[in-house]
Amino acid sequence: MDKSTTALLTDHYELTMVASALQSGVAGRRAVFEVFARSLPEGRAYGVVAGIDRMIDVARRFRFDDATVGHLVDSGVVREGPMTDWLRAYRFSGDITGYAEGELFFPYSPVVTVTGTFAECVVLETVILSVLNHDCAVASAAARMVDAAGGKTLIEGGSRRTDPQAAVAAARACHVGGFDTTSNLEAGRRHGIPTGGTTAHAFVLAHGDERESFVAQKATLGAGSTYLVDTFEVLQGIRNAVEVVGPEIGAVRIDSGELAADSRAARVLLDELGATGCRIVVSGDLDEFRVAELEAVDAPIDAYLVGTSLVTGSGYPTASMVYKLVSIAADDDPESELRAVGKLSPGKRTIGGRKAVQRIIGPDGNFIAEVLSVLPVELPDDCMSPQVTLIRNGESAVDLTDPGEARRRCADRRARLDPADRTPWPARTPAIPTIWEGVEEPLSAAVVNGAAR
Amino acid sequence: MDKSTTALLTDHYELTMVASALQSGVAGRRAVFEVFARSLPEGRAYGVVAGIDRMIDVARRFRFDDATVGHLVDSGVVREGPMTDWLRAYRFSGDITGYAEGELFFPYSPVVTVTGTFAECVVLETVILSVLNHDCAVASAAARMVDAAGGKTLIEGGSRRTDPQAAVAAARACHVGGFDTTSNLEAGRRHGIPTGGTTAHAFVLAHGDERESFVAQKATLGAGSTYLVDTFEVLQGIRNAVEVVGPEIGAVRIDSGELAADSRAARVLLDELGATGCRIVVSGDLDEFRVAELEAVDAPIDAYLVGTSLVTGSGYPTASMVYKLVSIAADDDPESELRAVGKLSPGKRTIGGRKAVQRIIGPDGNFIAEVLSVLPVELPDDCMSPQVTLIRNGESAVDLTDPGEARRRCADRRARLDPADRTPWPARTPAIPTIWEGVEEPLSAAVVNGAAR
Repeated sequence: MDKSTTALLTDHYELTMVASALQSGVAGRRAVFEVFARSLPEGRAYGVVAGIDRMIDVARRFRFDDATVGHLVDSGVVREGPMTDWLRAYRFSGDITGYAEGELFFPYSPVVTVTGTFAECVVLETVILSVLNHDCAVASAAARMVDAAGGKTLIEGGSRRTDPQAAVAAARACHVGGFDTTSNLEAGRRHGIPTGGTTAHAFVLAHGDERESFVAQKATLGAGSTYLVDTFEVLQGIRNAVEVVGPEIGAVRIDSGELAADSRAARVLLDELGATGCRIVVSGDLDEFRVAELEAVDAPIDAYLVGTSLVTGSGYPTASMVYKLVSIAADDDPESELRAVGKLSPGKRTIGGRKAVQRIIGPDGNFIAEVLSVLPVELPDDCMSPQVTLIRNGESAVDLTDPGEARRRCADRRARLDPADRTPWPARTPAIPTIWEGVEEPLSAAVVNGAAR
Repeated sequence: MDKSTTALLTDHYELTMVASALQSGVAGRRAVFEVFARSLPEGRAYGVVAGIDRMIDVARRFRFDDATVGHLVDSGVVREGPMTDWLRAYRFSGDITGYAEGELFFPYSPVVTVTGTFAECVVLETVILSVLNHDCAVASAAARMVDAAGGKTLIEGGSRRTDPQAAVAAARACHVGGFDTTSNLEAGRRHGIPTGGTTAHAFVLAHGDERESFVAQKATLGAGSTYLVDTFEVLQGIRNAVEVVGPEIGAVRIDSGELAADSRAARVLLDELGATGCRIVVSGDLDEFRVAELEAVDAPIDAYLVGTSLVTGSGYPTASMVYKLVSIAADDDPESELRAVGKLSPGKRTIGGRKAVQRIIGPDGNFIAEVLSVLPVELPDDCMSPQVTLIRNGESAVDLTDPGEARRRCADRRARLDPADRTPWPARTPAIPTIWEGVEEPLSAAVVNGAAR
């Protein structure tokens, strides 16, 4: 477990806001911030929550040690005084509630709610959004590919297409979204996700003769491993592989060309050669659309290896989550009532007040609507709330180390959507409506606090 | 400086290839790998090299300590034996040549060339590509925005839209591409990039009254700081700010609405109020296209704050770099001649042999062409080579700690392009042609080694 501070993985203005809030006296007022996305990416039916584990981790490691405070003073970001005292003592001691990892989200879903003093909450904005915007974007893309693949094996292999540390988080997010294995070894070590991989074209080329490379692979990785057959010509590659490995060959991988036609020709040839149990893995610029097209024509493909589009969110590399103040007390008294606040900025209005969520469930278990209301509400029987307590009084309230639980949750939640919305071209976007109860919708919002006008 | 190992930030198959190569005997053969992108993103005239410093750092920290080897054996990735001996002894001892940071690249430019034994080079593939694909994508987007902004100040503020560690690298890449400041405090600490920021809407809302928030900001950050004026209504926000701060107010920020019209109205009002020196900063879903549009209508904007599109590569979050074996010796003898190798996979052919680069320069200093040839060549007088030695015999051969040098190089190189190619809609894509000298072009390539057919 990394023990290093995350305190500088943040925006300059988080600290200048705290300094100014200490000056004006709002720093210590009880406040509520919410994280949500105003919309899903175009054409998407749902989003997948991921990164909750990382968010908790970075929030708990958000501490200002002497070296960090010294740097901030030396570089002129803050001045020695009440602000540096506050930084040295900083430790998030509030509450964080959020959607469970693997849960689905829709427009305005309050994915995370942070409660504490204004200053202790506001300072976490950047680091919380960084984690959620990245991980939710990747998990959401992954789930769409899982939907498209109709039960086939899905292999994540995008590490080389994204930042090396982001790659580890991406691998975990893909696993939550339903991918089976990853190429990323650190994701295997840190999160226990199954890893896999055999050889690349460079390995075949290094041997000059394709058969020699297959001989070496068989001796080391066994007949049951996956043989890359498209370095020169796919069908000759398959003949070479079966000749060297035998009909018990585990799988062949095709990384280029016309995957539908090539996989069909490969299947026919493999069967002719007696390698009827040999699986066909394909890769090469795949995304959910391409996978769905290959499935639609019944290409005899057993596994899809996806890289670039997956770790970059398939066109939407960030989940558009924002972190907004929705309530604040009038003074420092912990008993003071919270007042709802929202901004009027064109296109970016926010609805004040802490939101409660009821996800309405039909008699078949399917989701019907996401109902948002300002607290307090009684949850009726035919609904569930996706919100769970993550941090209480600064302490972790959940164990999030196993991504398998989030993965199962994601599969369960997606199964509660109409199948017509689980394709790359969903019937409804979003799959279920977001209904505002007791408050006007954001687009026509009468903002609760307009005092400054 | 981070001393931790980067050895697991890699793909599973890099290690299974090494194990198989140790088995077959190719592991110790001298080899050359090249990193290049087959094409630029659609509509782009050039790419910007960034991440060279990080690449050197992760390559030098790529070591397998006992805990790492133990994990790999326990998880079945490798077996105890020659492979674990090799891992424990691993230390890259070859050479790395590459384009200097801030240099421009074009299709097939050999941005990095790695020379050493096959095994010691192949194992670095994933981590080298991760760094370059991310950092080059961001720097390339940044430079386009700098081109579009016509000399106005550019502020990077995208940390919240990307992974927290990737955000630090993104901030550095943006600085190389020409951005002036960043919001990211760790980028300030680690790379000495100027950081900035003042307050967010939450700060204004927390005070209820906009004027109160400006009073607090002035007391802490001074009159010369930037005041956010669009929480409720821009012009009233400006009146409130000038009333509180005085005509010496440093800047106002507008984060929403119609930026061209609003900045014009803001300028008129600021001038009326005597705040003629007050700068106007705008933000909100900007990219190079939007910036160019605002410049085209002469909007009175002094600084652009860009976030999402910048750190996600403005539609192209990865630079499509690949890492390909281009030459390998026939045996382990260090004196053996290298033979060129390339693959025939449809759409993914590679040209064997180590490439030399001549960038042809016209009499006005402008770039005319990028000429690629297989070594050895004599560089003529009217050209330069963008390739520099980065690592020699495993040791760093350059000091890359100052991103300012790369930033100046990037500005110099971009100034050598036709101005018509330095817009979001360039006249030529790419700006200069890539000319193959003495080898056929990749699309019609006769691959040097076709032995396996």
